[in-house]
Amino acid sequence: MTDGAMQPFGLTLNKFLDHAAKWHPNTEVVTARENGSITRIGYAELRQRALCASTVFADLGVAFGDHVATLAWNSQAHVEAWYGIMGMGAVCHTLNPRLTAEQLASMLAQSKATVLIVSADLVDLAKQVCELSPLVSHMLVIDDEGGTGQDGGDKPAVHDYEALLARTEAKAIWGEFDETASSGLCFTSGTTGAPKGVTYTHRSSYLHTLRMLQADVMGLTAWDVILPVVPMFHANAWGLPFGAPATGSKLVLPGRHADGASLARLIESEGVTIAVGVPTVWVGLVDHLDATGGELPSLKRIAVGGAPMPPALMERIEKRLGVTVQTSWGMTELSPGGTFAPLGDPDRRPMVSGRPALGVDLLLTDTEGNALPEQRNTEGHLRVRGAAVIERYFGHEQKSTDENGWFDTGDLARIDELGNLTITGRSKELIKSGGEWINPAEIEAVICALPEVSFAAVIGRSDPKWGERPVLLVEMREGMTLGDDELLQSLRGRVASWWIPDAVVNLPQMPLASTGKVDKIRLKSEYGGS
Amino acid sequence: MTDGAMQPFGLTLNKFLDHAAKWHPNTEVVTARENGSITRIGYAELRQRALCASTVFADLGVAFGDHVATLAWNSQAHVEAWYGIMGMGAVCHTLNPRLTAEQLASMLAQSKATVLIVSADLVDLAKQVCELSPLVSHMLVIDDEGGTGQDGGDKPAVHDYEALLARTEAKAIWGEFDETASSGLCFTSGTTGAPKGVTYTHRSSYLHTLRMLQADVMGLTAWDVILPVVPMFHANAWGLPFGAPATGSKLVLPGRHADGASLARLIESEGVTIAVGVPTVWVGLVDHLDATGGELPSLKRIAVGGAPMPPALMERIEKRLGVTVQTSWGMTELSPGGTFAPLGDPDRRPMVSGRPALGVDLLLTDTEGNALPEQRNTEGHLRVRGAAVIERYFGHEQKSTDENGWFDTGDLARIDELGNLTITGRSKELIKSGGEWINPAEIEAVICALPEVSFAAVIGRSDPKWGERPVLLVEMREGMTLGDDELLQSLRGRVASWWIPDAVVNLPQMPLASTGKVDKIRLKSEYGGS
Repeated sequence: MTDGAMQPFGLTLNKFLDHAAKWHPNTEVVTARENGSITRIGYAELRQRALCASTVFADLGVAFGDHVATLAWNSQAHVEAWYGIMGMGAVCHTLNPRLTAEQLASMLAQSKATVLIVSADLVDLAKQVCELSPLVSHMLVIDDEGGTGQDGGDKPAVHDYEALLARTEAKAIWGEFDETASSGLCFTSGTTGAPKGVTYTHRSSYLHTLRMLQADVMGLTAWDVILPVVPMFHANAWGLPFGAPATGSKLVLPGRHADGASLARLIESEGVTIAVGVPTVWVGLVDHLDATGGELPSLKRIAVGGAPMPPALMERIEKRLGVTVQTSWGMTELSPGGTFAPLGDPDRRPMVSGRPALGVDLLLTDTEGNALPEQRNTEGHLRVRGAAVIERYFGHEQKSTDENGWFDTGDLARIDELGNLTITGRSKELIKSGGEWINPAEIEAVICALPEVSFAAVIGRSDPKWGERPVLLVEMREGMTLGDDELLQSLRGRVASWWIPDAVVNLPQMPLASTGKVDKIRLKSEYGGS
Repeated sequence: MTDGAMQPFGLTLNKFLDHAAKWHPNTEVVTARENGSITRIGYAELRQRALCASTVFADLGVAFGDHVATLAWNSQAHVEAWYGIMGMGAVCHTLNPRLTAEQLASMLAQSKATVLIVSADLVDLAKQVCELSPLVSHMLVIDDEGGTGQDGGDKPAVHDYEALLARTEAKAIWGEFDETASSGLCFTSGTTGAPKGVTYTHRSSYLHTLRMLQADVMGLTAWDVILPVVPMFHANAWGLPFGAPATGSKLVLPGRHADGASLARLIESEGVTIAVGVPTVWVGLVDHLDATGGELPSLKRIAVGGAPMPPALMERIEKRLGVTVQTSWGMTELSPGGTFAPLGDPDRRPMVSGRPALGVDLLLTDTEGNALPEQRNTEGHLRVRGAAVIERYFGHEQKSTDENGWFDTGDLARIDELGNLTITGRSKELIKSGGEWINPAEIEAVICALPEVSFAAVIGRSDPKWGERPVLLVEMREGMTLGDDELLQSLRGRVASWWIPDAVVNLPQMPLASTGKVDKIRLKSEYGGS
C-alpha cells in the first residue's frame, strides 16, 4: 500500500493562455496600431497563433533553453511571440529600444539569441544592433503595417512575421518541461551601475502572477479591461500579459504611444477599467483631459509604481479621472511586484508603496546586513525574500542573496506599524560626509516640490576634508528661474543643516537613463570629482 | 558562467501562519466556546502556540510523515494543532464526529495515527474509538472548559492539551522539507460507496489557497472577517483556515454550534463579513432573524457549496440578510474548491455553481470517458484536472485518473456558453431502464419543490424486464400528507413519462449520512431489491 497523492501540475506559463483560450475564448486582446487603427483578437485565436509562432521559432533552429530576443512595443504580436517563446521552453529576452545599439549588442552577446523579433519602426535600430551582434541570424519584423519590403537580407535574414505565421501550422507542444525552466531575461535599468540580467523561471513568474491576482494585490477580474502602458521590456509589463489571460481580463496594448491623447482615445474606445504605468504618463493624460475637457467614465483604477507618489499629484489624478490610484513598489529583480497598496484599505496613507502579500517578505537591516532590532517606524536597508525574487544574476557565479536567503534591494526604507512600506532612498546614492550618511532622496524631495523645478538630483562630490559633500543639480521648468540661495534656503529646517549642498549646478537638460530615471552614473562621473 | 535563477521558495503551509504572524500579528482568531464566552488570540501568538504544539507532538513520538488525528469542532486549539502537525511535516487526519466509532476506528487503522486530538465534548466517542484502535496511545483533549479531570489513563494516555502546551517551548522548526510532502488526510463522505481517503500535500493546498484568494474566486482581503461554519473535518473547512492567515483576514470559529441564534450572536459581536457553509445553515439563520427581528449589518457575503441553490432560497437569504450569496461547487477530492461564482459577474444565473478559475480544468465526457464533441450546453460526465485534484486515493495502488490525467467526479453536469457549471446529478445514481438512463436528481428536484415534501430520493430497483426501474422514497413535512398519485402526477410533463417511478415509499424519517446528505447506500440496500 502506498500513500495517496494529488495530481502533478507544472507551474508553466503557457497554462495562462491555455486557460484563457478555453474559458475566455472571445475575450479580446486589442492593439493600437501606428496608423491609428485598432486590431483585436480573442484569446482562443491568439493561442493558436502563439503555437504557430513556436513552430516558426523551432523551424529557425530555436531549441529548449535558447534565448529569443524581442525589441518591440506592447502589441498583440509581441504577446504572441512571448508565449510562443516561453511555451516551447525557450527564454524571452526583452530589449529596451531606448538603449543604444552598443548596449543592446552587449546584452545580446550575453544571451546568445539567434532570433530577434522587432517592431517595424525599430528595424533601423535593430540593424545597427545586428551589425554588432554576429550571433543574430534571423530578424522577424512584427507590426509591419505596410506589410511588404521587410523580407530579405542574409546577415541576418529579415522575415515578415505575419508571412511566416501564415505558412506555419500550430504543431508545437507546450509546457512539457520542468517548471523551474527559465522563461524570461530582462536587464536592469542600470541607473546606478552596469545593467545586470535577471532570469525569470516559469515557476517564479507563475507564482508572481498568482500573487498579482489576489484581491489585496491587483485583484484582476474577468470583467476588467487592462491597459499596460508599462512596456513588456520593463520587467514583463509588471506581469500583466500573464495576469490578464490568467484571470480572463481583456488586454489593451497601446503600441508605441503613451501620450495623453492616444491613451485617452484608447481608454474611451475600449472601456479600460485599470491602467498601469509610471506617474508621468498619468500627468500627461490629466493634462490632455484638462485641455480638451474629456471624461473617461470606464476607468476605475490607475496603478503606479516606482517612486513615492506625491499626495498632491495623487489627488489631482484621482479627482480629475474619478479613479483610485493604487501605489506599489517593485523592481526588475522582483519580477517585478514587491508591495501593493490594498484597494480596500480604510487606513490608506499618502507616500506609501503598499504592503507585502503572501510570497514576499521584507527585512530592514543596518549597512552590514544585520537585521535591525526594531523593524517598524525606523529607516533601514531593505532586503527581500520570496518565490519571485532573484537569487543570482544572469551569468554570475555568485549568489546575490545573503546566508539567510535575503536579497539586498539597495533601497532605504521605512515600514510603519500597519506594514506599509515607504522607500526613502537608494543606499548606493547615500553620501558619506564626515563619517555620517546624507540621503539625497530626502533633499531631492524638498527641491522637486518647488513649482519652478523640473528635475533635481543630489550627488556626492569628493571632498578632501569630509570625504564627500553633496552637490545639487537642477533643471528648471521652461521659462522659470530660481536663485541658488533660494533653492538652498528652501531646505533650511527641512533637512539637517550639514546636509545642505555645498554647490548648485543648473543644467539645461537633466540626463535621463533609458527608463526615464535621472542618470546618476553620468552625473557622478561629470560632477562628482573634487 | 551559469544562468541566473530565482530564489528557492517551498510551497509549505506553515508560510501562511508565518506571514500572518509577521504582517498581521494582532489580527484575531476568535472562538465561540461551549459556555457562551469568546476567546481571542492574535496570529503572532497563535503561531507561537502552534510551534509549541509541534514540540508536544514530537515529544510524543510523532515524526515526519506520521499521521496525527483530530476529532474536533472548529476552534483556535484545533487550528493550532493543525498548523503544529503540518508545520513539522506530519499529516493531519481530520475525523468526522458524526460517524460511528467503528467507522472512525477503520479510518484510524488506515492512517496509523498514534496521537488523537479531541474536543472535550467528544471524549466519550473518542474513548469508544480508541477501544477499537490499539495504535492510538495518546489522546490530547482540547477546549476543555472545565480544565481538569481529563489527564490520566494509560491506554491511551489522556492529556490536557493546555497543560502540555504550558510546559513546552516553541522550539520546533517548520517547513524544512519538500513541498510535495503530505499535509492532510480526509475521508470522503461515502454516500454512494465506502469512504476513501484523500491525501493533500503542502503544494496542493498551497496552490488551492492561492486560487481561493483570487478576486474572481473567494477574494478574501485583510479587512474581511471570516466565519467558516463548514467544519475543518469537511475537506479543510473549504480551505479557510489556510486562506484567512494567508491574506490576514480575521477568523471566527463557531465551535460546535451552527444554530441560527448562535451564529447571529457571533456574526454581530465579531463583525463577520463573509460566512461560509451549506445552505441549510443559512436557512436556520434567516428563520432565527425572522423570529427575533434582528439585523446583521456587517455581513456582506455568504458562500455556499454542494447542491445547486434554489433561486427562491437564494433570494430569501439575500433579501433578509442584505448579502450576496456566492455559489460554488467542490468535493473532498478537489481540496475541495472546484468552481466559484465570481462576485462581480453581471450575468449571474440562478442554479449555477460558478466557473473554473486558473488551476482547475473541466471536461464533459460520455459514460466511457470520451470527451463530448460539444462541451457547452450539453449534459455529460464531469472530469476535472488541476493542481489540487486527487490522483490516487490513500492506500490505493491504482491511480484515479484516466490516461490524460482527468479525475472522474462521478457527477453529471452542464456547462453554459459563459463557462458556468451546473451539476445535474450523480452518475453512480443513474438508473438504467431498458438500456436508457434515468437521472434521479431531476425527479428529486421536482418532488422536493412540493411544499409538503421534506426529503425525496429516487433509487433504482431491480426489474426482470427493464433491468432497473425507479422507486420514489419520500419523507413528508410534519403534519402534512400527499397521496402517491398526487406525488407522481406532479412529475407529468416535467420528466419523460417512462422516468416516472413505479412505486412510492413513505418514510417516517429519511436516513441521512454523516454529512447531512440522503444515505442512498442504505436506501439501495433496503429498497433496491426486486
